[in-house]
Amino acid sequence: MSDTSQHLFIRACFQQPVERTPVWMMRQAGRYLPEYRAVRKDHDFITMCKTPDLATEVTLQPIDIVGVDAAILFSDILVIPEAMGMELQFIPGKGPNFPKPIRDAAMLKTLKRIDAEKDLRYVLDAIRQVKQSLDGRVPLIGFSGAPWTLATYMIEGSGSKNYKYPKQWAYARPDLLHSLMEKLSKAVSDYCIAKIDAGAEAIQLFDTWAGILSREGFREFALPYVKQIIETIRRPGIPIIYFAKGAMIWQEDLLSCGADVIGVDWTANLQDVRRAAGNRVALQGNLDPTALYAPPEKIRQLVKDMLAQYGQGYGHIANLGHGILPDIPVPHAQEFVRAVKEESSRWKQTN
Amino acid sequence: MSDTSQHLFIRACFQQPVERTPVWMMRQAGRYLPEYRAVRKDHDFITMCKTPDLATEVTLQPIDIVGVDAAILFSDILVIPEAMGMELQFIPGKGPNFPKPIRDAAMLKTLKRIDAEKDLRYVLDAIRQVKQSLDGRVPLIGFSGAPWTLATYMIEGSGSKNYKYPKQWAYARPDLLHSLMEKLSKAVSDYCIAKIDAGAEAIQLFDTWAGILSREGFREFALPYVKQIIETIRRPGIPIIYFAKGAMIWQEDLLSCGADVIGVDWTANLQDVRRAAGNRVALQGNLDPTALYAPPEKIRQLVKDMLAQYGQGYGHIANLGHGILPDIPVPHAQEFVRAVKEESSRWKQTN
Repeated sequence: MSDTSQHLFIRACFQQPVERTPVWMMRQAGRYLPEYRAVRKDHDFITMCKTPDLATEVTLQPIDIVGVDAAILFSDILVIPEAMGMELQFIPGKGPNFPKPIRDAAMLKTLKRIDAEKDLRYVLDAIRQVKQSLDGRVPLIGFSGAPWTLATYMIEGSGSKNYKYPKQWAYARPDLLHSLMEKLSKAVSDYCIAKIDAGAEAIQLFDTWAGILSREGFREFALPYVKQIIETIRRPGIPIIYFAKGAMIWQEDLLSCGADVIGVDWTANLQDVRRAAGNRVALQGNLDPTALYAPPEKIRQLVKDMLAQYGQGYGHIANLGHGILPDIPVPHAQEFVRAVKEESSRWKQTN
Repeated sequence: MSDTSQHLFIRACFQQPVERTPVWMMRQAGRYLPEYRAVRKDHDFITMCKTPDLATEVTLQPIDIVGVDAAILFSDILVIPEAMGMELQFIPGKGPNFPKPIRDAAMLKTLKRIDAEKDLRYVLDAIRQVKQSLDGRVPLIGFSGAPWTLATYMIEGSGSKNYKYPKQWAYARPDLLHSLMEKLSKAVSDYCIAKIDAGAEAIQLFDTWAGILSREGFREFALPYVKQIIETIRRPGIPIIYFAKGAMIWQEDLLSCGADVIGVDWTANLQDVRRAAGNRVALQGNLDPTALYAPPEKIRQLVKDMLAQYGQGYGHIANLGHGILPDIPVPHAQEFVRAVKEESSRWKQTN
């Protein structure tokens, strides 16, 4: 198997020199691709996650079709709560659902400690299979939900507008919430380490619901556990990316959390974030996902603006500011990737 | 009718000395109150908005029951699009809905210019009636949706997760979006001026969906129109409050928009915002609405923290960082208001 440690995605994560800016897209293995929908038509979402052949197939699709510089394993953040013993359903048109959410101390006690090699074997098998198929073409990113975001789903039971129940715990039962966060941190750490051992070459932690917390809540319930996980899973040469959506207002907290790369959502200005970051971390992002509705020539202009915002020097991984939307035309996604490659090559040559 | 220009809410809006911090709650005339639900049981939401007797009744409820320092007229931001000719429905459990959203230039042309005294007479009548009933006890705030937030509903047709259609316009049809924003700015200005003429003593502009824009989008589509409205509706002695949810990352844009008061959502730290604001604006907010799930003694501690974050000096209007949630126990809302009054009186005396 080829060595990918010198791949430009990995180098950019460590702020090392690259000949052009690497690019991938969150949710790149997803519904906007007809090839994905063709697989999905015959299998439900959970089956796809749990069948290494299928997970491998859709993980590889965007590499060839869109030309991204990294693969990210097709999976779901909620495989961890399921492995901890919670029944997980995906309701068509409604999303993930836990019919028995965690609402009291007794239910909290039912959560079991995971054995990643046993309980999440299907994920690790998929990693091994993807790695074999990729054969070093691009690095493979493994991901996990961050503890707070996993907790929101486990306590609420589903996606929500106000996340009443987890927020209620934050204010009225911080003891229970901390206890859950500790269990989750252990599970996330074990899971990420198992992924790295199976061959993942980078880890991204998704904290999709960070932004519903107050700053004090973020500092009490989300950030310390993320820091602890980053310390625990750190392995030489394996970059760790933390993406906390809606949390750019707490920029300084993010930049000092210990991750190698901070995912930047589309609300932030890359130049401002970079100025604050200095050389502490690389930045990943941050084109507005809805910008891909624009005609291709406008997409190219927006890519140029994004590259110019980051500016000279190394440590930028181009991406969207959140996952690609299911109804984006494939040629628009292709233009995004192509424009990053072409415009950043030009940029690196002339600067 | 008594003069309320010296009421502490108005004085705090203009950063003038107050003996204690004034307090009110967004959505204070709402479902958490059994007295509100009793009225709502017999009338649908639109009927309540359109019947001055009913609007007056629920507007006054929190003044007596919770003891807030300002009334805010019970109404809905979507009365403007309706007055412009759009059919508006409220679907139980789903929220507002425009069955025929604005999706092309032809539909845009159907929007008519409003005549506030004619088309929104019921709002102005309600203001006059509330003022009479209040008899100067507390000032009355009139509100309007800000143009971008109104546009999101008018283009999308309803609440949404991604606001695909308005965002699509921002990137693919900025011409149509600007045209809509111009129409809306005119309508919002006319509406606010009519409210002031009818007796509203402060105006709050709600930009609930500001945070779905990119910074560039906010600067292109939201902010300039808000600035223009503020200039147009400015009247001596009438403070203007701008509340843009999820927009605290663009703090400097907000602080310099021309409003007298900036509404601060619960993600921001009041001390940081105040430091950036200097003496330019007063700040309103910002307790996390879900903090009211906490037991009363914890609510009091959180209120103390909030007051300490703002610190000494004048120009703070205590509020939640967003609307009060429908299932907050009334005693918790009462404790929030009581704690602000008591703790800030102590604070002002000892500092």
